[in-house]
Amino acid sequence: MTTMRQTAATEFAGRPGTAREWLDRARRVARLLAADAAERDRHPRPPHAEVRLLKDAGLVTLLGPKAHGGGGERWTTALRVCREVSRADGSIGQLLGYHYLWAWAVRFFGTEAQIAEQEAAYTRGGLFYGGAINPRDAHVVAVDEGDALRLDGRKSFASGGAVSDLTCLLAGLADGRPVFAAVASDAPGLRYNHDWDNMGQRLTESGSLSLSGVRVPWDAALGYTGKSARPLPYGSLSLLTLQLIMTNLYQGIAEGAMEAAAEYTRTTTRPWPYGGDVKESATEEWYILEAYGDFRSKLWATEALIDRVGEELSELLHAPRGAVTPQQRGEAAVRIAAAKQRIIKEGLEVCTRIFDVMGARSTASRHGFDRFWRNLRTHSLHDPVAYKQREVGRYALLGEPPEPTFYS
Amino acid sequence: MTTMRQTAATEFAGRPGTAREWLDRARRVARLLAADAAERDRHPRPPHAEVRLLKDAGLVTLLGPKAHGGGGERWTTALRVCREVSRADGSIGQLLGYHYLWAWAVRFFGTEAQIAEQEAAYTRGGLFYGGAINPRDAHVVAVDEGDALRLDGRKSFASGGAVSDLTCLLAGLADGRPVFAAVASDAPGLRYNHDWDNMGQRLTESGSLSLSGVRVPWDAALGYTGKSARPLPYGSLSLLTLQLIMTNLYQGIAEGAMEAAAEYTRTTTRPWPYGGDVKESATEEWYILEAYGDFRSKLWATEALIDRVGEELSELLHAPRGAVTPQQRGEAAVRIAAAKQRIIKEGLEVCTRIFDVMGARSTASRHGFDRFWRNLRTHSLHDPVAYKQREVGRYALLGEPPEPTFYS
Amino acid sequence: MTTMRQTAATEFAGRPGTAREWLDRARRVARLLAADAAERDRHPRPPHAEVRLLKDAGLVTLLGPKAHGGGGERWTTALRVCREVSRADGSIGQLLGYHYLWAWAVRFFGTEAQIAEQEAAYTRGGLFYGGAINPRDAHVVAVDEGDALRLDGRKSFASGGAVSDLTCLLAGLADGRPVFAAVASDAPGLRYNHDWDNMGQRLTESGSLSLSGVRVPWDAALGYTGKSARPLPYGSLSLLTLQLIMTNLYQGIAEGAMEAAAEYTRTTTRPWPYGGDVKESATEEWYILEAYGDFRSKLWATEALIDRVGEELSELLHAPRGAVTPQQRGEAAVRIAAAKQRIIKEGLEVCTRIFDVMGARSTASRHGFDRFWRNLRTHSLHDPVAYKQREVGRYALLGEPPEPTFYS
Amino acid sequence: MTTMRQTAATEFAGRPGTAREWLDRARRVARLLAADAAERDRHPRPPHAEVRLLKDAGLVTLLGPKAHGGGGERWTTALRVCREVSRADGSIGQLLGYHYLWAWAVRFFGTEAQIAEQEAAYTRGGLFYGGAINPRDAHVVAVDEGDALRLDGRKSFASGGAVSDLTCLLAGLADGRPVFAAVASDAPGLRYNHDWDNMGQRLTESGSLSLSGVRVPWDAALGYTGKSARPLPYGSLSLLTLQLIMTNLYQGIAEGAMEAAAEYTRTTTRPWPYGGDVKESATEEWYILEAYGDFRSKLWATEALIDRVGEELSELLHAPRGAVTPQQRGEAAVRIAAAKQRIIKEGLEVCTRIFDVMGARSTASRHGFDRFWRNLRTHSLHDPVAYKQREVGRYALLGEPPEPTFYS
Repeated sequence: MTTMRQTAATEFAGRPGTAREWLDRARRVARLLAADAAERDRHPRPPHAEVRLLKDAGLVTLLGPKAHGGGGERWTTALRVCREVSRADGSIGQLLGYHYLWAWAVRFFGTEAQIAEQEAAYTRGGLFYGGAINPRDAHVVAVDEGDALRLDGRKSFASGGAVSDLTCLLAGLADGRPVFAAVASDAPGLRYNHDWDNMGQRLTESGSLSLSGVRVPWDAALGYTGKSARPLPYGSLSLLTLQLIMTNLYQGIAEGAMEAAAEYTRTTTRPWPYGGDVKESATEEWYILEAYGDFRSKLWATEALIDRVGEELSELLHAPRGAVTPQQRGEAAVRIAAAKQRIIKEGLEVCTRIFDVMGARSTASRHGFDRFWRNLRTHSLHDPVAYKQREVGRYALLGEPPEPTFYS
Repeated sequence: MTTMRQTAATEFAGRPGTAREWLDRARRVARLLAADAAERDRHPRPPHAEVRLLKDAGLVTLLGPKAHGGGGERWTTALRVCREVSRADGSIGQLLGYHYLWAWAVRFFGTEAQIAEQEAAYTRGGLFYGGAINPRDAHVVAVDEGDALRLDGRKSFASGGAVSDLTCLLAGLADGRPVFAAVASDAPGLRYNHDWDNMGQRLTESGSLSLSGVRVPWDAALGYTGKSARPLPYGSLSLLTLQLIMTNLYQGIAEGAMEAAAEYTRTTTRPWPYGGDVKESATEEWYILEAYGDFRSKLWATEALIDRVGEELSELLHAPRGAVTPQQRGEAAVRIAAAKQRIIKEGLEVCTRIFDVMGARSTASRHGFDRFWRNLRTHSLHDPVAYKQREVGRYALLGEPPEPTFYS
Repeated sequence: MTTMRQTAATEFAGRPGTAREWLDRARRVARLLAADAAERDRHPRPPHAEVRLLKDAGLVTLLGPKAHGGGGERWTTALRVCREVSRADGSIGQLLGYHYLWAWAVRFFGTEAQIAEQEAAYTRGGLFYGGAINPRDAHVVAVDEGDALRLDGRKSFASGGAVSDLTCLLAGLADGRPVFAAVASDAPGLRYNHDWDNMGQRLTESGSLSLSGVRVPWDAALGYTGKSARPLPYGSLSLLTLQLIMTNLYQGIAEGAMEAAAEYTRTTTRPWPYGGDVKESATEEWYILEAYGDFRSKLWATEALIDRVGEELSELLHAPRGAVTPQQRGEAAVRIAAAKQRIIKEGLEVCTRIFDVMGARSTASRHGFDRFWRNLRTHSLHDPVAYKQREVGRYALLGEPPEPTFYS
Repeated sequence: MTTMRQTAATEFAGRPGTAREWLDRARRVARLLAADAAERDRHPRPPHAEVRLLKDAGLVTLLGPKAHGGGGERWTTALRVCREVSRADGSIGQLLGYHYLWAWAVRFFGTEAQIAEQEAAYTRGGLFYGGAINPRDAHVVAVDEGDALRLDGRKSFASGGAVSDLTCLLAGLADGRPVFAAVASDAPGLRYNHDWDNMGQRLTESGSLSLSGVRVPWDAALGYTGKSARPLPYGSLSLLTLQLIMTNLYQGIAEGAMEAAAEYTRTTTRPWPYGGDVKESATEEWYILEAYGDFRSKLWATEALIDRVGEELSELLHAPRGAVTPQQRGEAAVRIAAAKQRIIKEGLEVCTRIFDVMGARSTASRHGFDRFWRNLRTHSLHDPVAYKQREVGRYALLGEPPEPTFYS
């Protein structure tokens, strides 16, 4: 990573000014990340250098207010940037996408004052967010201790926490009310257990997190004024945003798989010397051309839907918070669910079938081409895609959008 | 059809002013067509009344110049209108789409003078185009007879000819140069053989056409000035436009199938009384919701790609004719090829599987639900989709766009 | 049909002696049926001549006792014969398969005396069975009138009834007990409504049946002795047998589709003249060879499973009636359910994709190649395949065989 | 492995006497192997203990002559034993299957005297075969040095070599004639490079092999008498046998994946708490039952075909060597090609989709559930499945069996 870091330091002078420039920037980051992605996957370590790269390149503050030095960009751009980074390294793409979500948490749940303060802070500081909000864990308990809340408990998955500056937490008060808050990742009482050892997304540092007497001042509890809160429907867009970040992550992984395979086929795959009219190059093999035609067509179709759905959600995210209706939210939810299920299906197929068009030697561990399948397979289990399919079905058949839950 | 016609006459006063209004108009036309589409399929007759309806509703001149009373709309709108009509009746959708293509032939191949004259004529007259240009037939022979050309020969497929006002023809001069021209459909020497009897698209009147001494004045030969012509690359967009019209036709047919099925499932399908937790309504059956979720997701993905590709081609079609480059043309070709293969694959699956979510009684002939599969299956064989897949594969793997041919 | 009948009369002298000979016989029948199957599908009439052919060829009494002139064959043979006939004509294959089932009803439900009597009668007479037992209809009511039962009511579907000699009926006594019995198809009070007009299986004469005062002597009520009955578990094999007959029907239809397509591809399909290395014959096109490779592989896999499951069920059907256990029955049910869902899935795909390897002109109505899809699609909706899949899933996951119902 | 070895030593007293007993034996071996298969995959070492287990259990000599203490079993049994072992550990299953092939090489290519001698030797000694015959490598060169041949060169893949007693080699004489021979795996001049580091089948020790002056006596050169040889068509069955071993390996891996998943779903997977009628157990989730129904049905179909094809090939392998005709060979080749492509397709899908029915936590590395996909994906690239599909297609369309090559 030394080389990468040095390059980055010098390369990323200046801030992109347009969505197109942000995408170019993301592609340059991706190229740097791609160089040793296979190696990182084989020997995962906390991705401090990679997060540093995201910061140096300015991607971390893409959504931050321009007034504080942020990019002031729209979510459509953030989602596509996340996708570009995921082409090269699904883990880093996930970390960046989740960061965008958690940095926006203050808009989902916070007061205007909290928004002003927290966006300024993270944008000026170039701070990176991790988080731990898995709702299927037993809640972390929040106890009112006067000026502050005291948090105790455990979260199974705290993506990115260990390499972040701030950690977004979800806890529950005794009366059942939820509390969202961001704390410094090195706050006393927070312990990252570094126990993420899964078959994919190996650098996401998604291990468990223990909380023991973590103090959160009441005025950091998002949306609370005088210890009470009035959630907006807008807040439930957070789940959709997470789902759409995932969807972009998957598209990125699948695109990355196809591109890596194409490079290998062009440079390394040999034509088959038996059985009929033998070709001079693997790139003339009918079955290889046909397969790439299938991959490309499928991923263009999922991309088109993901982009369009991204525009739809982005409209809502950048609208005045009070203006978003349950109906709009519901329709966005269904569309995102549809996009997600398509890219999971097509993406897994592409990640499996790329080997058919590369050949037997492409399975050498040094190439690490199986990481695409492992990454996509691992993350796409976040919640059962069968339920997403059912939600879309209810909408198609009955016109009924899904009830907001922690997953839809 | 009497009722339909009467309705139409009164209903369609005024001309739509925006793309949205054109789509609403198309949906109203579709509703009228849907009422007896199954019946028409069972007992096909030349669709004079249906073409009349397209004219009355103004759809026929949607692309015509505003100066002459046309809609002056863009191709994006024309393609979506064609799709809407195809939801109700694939045959009529095809006729309308082909009409748009043939009406635009003068822009693909003609001189500026020819454009001015022919667009004025068809728009003012509300004329409907048919055509016969299948290049795999032996060419119709064009013989120079001084002021005019004399055309003799036969075309296997002349879609819409028999119900059209004008017929677009492709013939070949002795020196191999092609001649495109539109003639009056009742011109002496043109004979429609009414021999289209195929398993789908039964109302398209795509039977063969005999030409015996058909006279075409030289100045009707598109693009010719003084008996010589200089084709533009722009002209080769005609093939792409045809391919994209087909693609929209298929999307329309598949959407129509899904909608017809959903209506039946909601109103008629019974829940299954055996095997586990019996439901009160078919709309609660898990397998039914899942299937609709699958259909809807797939057709949203294809729709998103088709719409985006439609915008891309539309940009080229409405650009100055000299400005279109082979590279732009090639990229559009690949993208259209991708969209086409996706909707053929997904559409055939939807048209087959709708029966699973309707049940055994939905196969009664009076419903005619098999027409969706028959229509899509019939037309999607126009050219081998395997070659389309290969073209996309070459582009994805090697960056090479397809050579322009009569099919790509 | 005149020609066919005359051929049949002279050709089928002698009775086959082995399973192999029976299959050869079935193939000869299939060839005769294939000649005008497309024509029959277009203009369906009651298949009297076709049933006559089945009788003349001896197929009708294949399962009948040798002592009475029957073939004395095993169910494995009957199932494969049914499959062979279905290759040529799905309707006639279904009629034959159902005949085998109904002729066996006396073994499923009858007393030893009834078996002896009824098998002798139908075998000696070469009689053909139809039937009407759809359990989702309101039951036909059976009223005890002393020596006989009086049957009144209506059945929605009475496959083959109108061209049969005997009709197998299911009725219900006031106390809920079911009554199976075969009556002469021209018995007073039976009325065939000739209202079967569906998109597939058009010759099966599966229209509705009205019963008005139909008399059935008590001693024809299968299994009843002195007006009471003790059903055996063996009887519940009837449902499995029906399901497996269907499965063989579907395999036959799909094989027939593939063979008809291959004949067309070999003789009629043209190679594609554009796009790369042009072939001299369609049979050298990579995409065509690949598709047939896919069809053949899939249908060999389903065939292997169907044959094996056929042997498993045949073992049970020919075992002593008291020896069959619920566990054996349950495992056979699951295996049949698995075979059925596979062939429905693969078969529909083959019937759809054959057109890709025949080309656009194969859609001409005179070929009638869409009948394979229509036949398979129509009959495969008999009961929801999703429930079959769920049954197999319960067995695979939990080891639990399905509860016997009217459908599994 | 200590525990496993001790168990094995005591457990496997006595030799199975029937095919069924051999399968039971194989299942016991599989159970022992399954216990730490995931661990072995994570930390691969040369599988000495595992090969020892295969020897102790008697599996290694299953095909050896009874006269010398072998099982004298048929290939049908060997193939199914290989499949059973592969359920637990694809690497060990591959090693065993390849051993069977190489032990049979003397029958494919040797003289009667060589058969008698070599079968006695390996059976009595309980010797384990590895081999290196990859024909796409530049040939190893064999030089005639009088009584012996001298072999020099390199083979890219020498499966099992490093843990074997004997190594089967393929070399080429200057005049192009091939030489097959088995040498002691610790013969001077043989060097195993231990460079197999691939994403799957990680224990197969399939690294490269260097040959430097390896001496092979002429009378060990299979089939040679007085330095000349007359190959039989029977010899070309070796390729088919290898292909069918692979096919059984894939079936075993896929079955193993399904079983491991089912165990996990039953014991660990939680029902989904959102979205409709919540279940008490994951085993009641419709989507989970449906998925297992799909897996089981697909793998039953492939199994049925593989078993049947195994019987067909076994007939040929155990027939008199002179009796096998090219036609028989060709038909077997096509059937095996069909079986292979089906299980690759279905198996990869099962190995991918098992995670959907286990849930997110099943991706923890300690479970190692991704090894099924990695193993199957790695080995199924041996030769391009697209060419296998094409071969079957040629046969289905034209009745032409494939030319014998090193791969078909």
